[in-house]
Amino acid sequence: MKELGVALYGLGTVGSGLVEVMTARRAELERRRDVRLALRRIVVRNPDRQRTVAVDRALLTTDWRVPLRDPSVDIVVEAMGGTEPARTVIRDALSAGKHVVTANKALIATHGAELERLARAHGVLLRYEGAVGGAIPVLHAIRGALVGNRIGRISGIVNGTTNYILTRMTQDSLALPAALAEAQARGFAEADPRSDLSGLDAAQKLVILVHQATGEWIPVARVEREGLDRIAPSDIERARAQGCVIKLVADATLEGSTAPTLRVGPVMLPADHPLASVHGEQNAVLLESDFAGPLFFTGRGAGGRPTGSAVYGDVVEAVASRQSRVGRERRTAGIFVEAG
Amino acid sequence: MKELGVALYGLGTVGSGLVEVMTARRAELERRRDVRLALRRIVVRNPDRQRTVAVDRALLTTDWRVPLRDPSVDIVVEAMGGTEPARTVIRDALSAGKHVVTANKALIATHGAELERLARAHGVLLRYEGAVGGAIPVLHAIRGALVGNRIGRISGIVNGTTNYILTRMTQDSLALPAALAEAQARGFAEADPRSDLSGLDAAQKLVILVHQATGEWIPVARVEREGLDRIAPSDIERARAQGCVIKLVADATLEGSTAPTLRVGPVMLPADHPLASVHGEQNAVLLESDFAGPLFFTGRGAGGRPTGSAVYGDVVEAVASRQSRVGRERRTAGIFVEAG
Repeated sequence: MKELGVALYGLGTVGSGLVEVMTARRAELERRRDVRLALRRIVVRNPDRQRTVAVDRALLTTDWRVPLRDPSVDIVVEAMGGTEPARTVIRDALSAGKHVVTANKALIATHGAELERLARAHGVLLRYEGAVGGAIPVLHAIRGALVGNRIGRISGIVNGTTNYILTRMTQDSLALPAALAEAQARGFAEADPRSDLSGLDAAQKLVILVHQATGEWIPVARVEREGLDRIAPSDIERARAQGCVIKLVADATLEGSTAPTLRVGPVMLPADHPLASVHGEQNAVLLESDFAGPLFFTGRGAGGRPTGSAVYGDVVEAVASRQSRVGRERRTAGIFVEAG
Repeated sequence: MKELGVALYGLGTVGSGLVEVMTARRAELERRRDVRLALRRIVVRNPDRQRTVAVDRALLTTDWRVPLRDPSVDIVVEAMGGTEPARTVIRDALSAGKHVVTANKALIATHGAELERLARAHGVLLRYEGAVGGAIPVLHAIRGALVGNRIGRISGIVNGTTNYILTRMTQDSLALPAALAEAQARGFAEADPRSDLSGLDAAQKLVILVHQATGEWIPVARVEREGLDRIAPSDIERARAQGCVIKLVADATLEGSTAPTLRVGPVMLPADHPLASVHGEQNAVLLESDFAGPLFFTGRGAGGRPTGSAVYGDVVEAVASRQSRVGRERRTAGIFVEAG
């Protein structure tokens, strides 16, 4: 049986979700793929904190440099969030020939170009399905089954917090502050909700989607962006009177020879629009592709278990990658060289 | 640049769609993956027939045995449909160490177990994304990004013909024969519509979905099945009066320790059910998974371009497979053996 070492950075919502999936699917992975994932290290800020998942305390470390020097770590999962030390961890991991999986949309949207160059240079995978749309496997789909398509347009509801707030404002005529307070109380909004409310979080995800579809990295600052701040109950009433709902839509037009146009903002959608019936913390993505036609995906956009599921899917992709350790060692020894 | 040889069996709707995608994405595949797909042979019944796509006439052959003996053919695409010679072609191709891609749901639903055994025994891929849901990348998703999930339930609208007919019956109060005639005139129904109307086609697709989710092959005969034949305009009216629509739903319950329950039949769905707003020839699949939660996919369920796109995605997966020719030759020479 092949054994691959995993180092996990961060044991918050996403990290705990991943540990849950790894534990639940351990026997299945061994049986169906003859692979064992061994959790070698977990980097945390505070080893004494109570955890929602059971992990061997001996795995915990506060020193993020340790796993990067450990040759038995093949895959690094970055689930800390933030820019530093996440960026340094990912750079150093890739440079050390380790696959990296992350759900850090802010980091990937901003530093994706640099990090993907590093991954290519070192022949390893950098994957971030969990960064966009939570459990919705849209990056895999664009890269995999839809590889024959040129995507002409991407539109989606990719921020669960604002969608929850708009849903509450629409269904119960709440004002924005009351809907936000409720979202925070129910764990659908951060203590500091600015990145969600301003549309920044959605803009970062849109940049990542556009990259997956086109190969280009558009700076987040180039996304035309409007947040929820100016939406009042009266706007929602006006929309309703016209048979519409207001949604915070991330939208990219990729067709033609001109540069892609990326926009995030509140949009009035007719009730029969596919995005109009995406409620609460749900996310959804609509792709318009030249051969496959329109494709629509919905699912949970956040949460430890859905995002953990996406991260796990990336980890297994790294396991299956032909650049995985066995292959790398052989390549290093000069026996096996394969293109692609 | 790596060059892989493709033999295409059948140049009807799906085969022509694949040729279109291959032509449109040739430069991109070369640039982005350093791979060239070379169409070596096209097996057709009648070489003199007018075609909707331009192909080199010298590639056409009526002898289905020829490409199987050609060592420069790495990937066989079976787009003939029917059982024979499709089954023999696939068996012989797999036995000859060639990857096989097909969209033949009847064949896979019936002989999938045997064919997958053969593929495993010969270390090659057998892929059939186009067999279910046309362009919807649901098999890829279950196998790939959702690999960490146990799927508890699958429900879907996986037959575009009956969905088109029901939509016309609902929206314009047509009777079944009139709606069927219209579907045939518009190319959404075969001259012989029995497999669609009886629910057999949907049952075959459900068997394939269940296999992808569980690894098990349930005999098509074990699917509880009811077709459209008994649906009259009065049933549709009665549903409407209750705020519902009638859809032909394929449904599998996979939870618990009991055997999976598979059913295809007309179902009254409340208007806010995700499947209720899937209209016309659209397909949709709803997955309930333990970590990712509910996931919903919609898209074009048939047609040359959407299905061609799905087949192309499988072909590219075969290209990227570590069992592709270069690797196989090395393995044969005893240098490179890799598990998984």
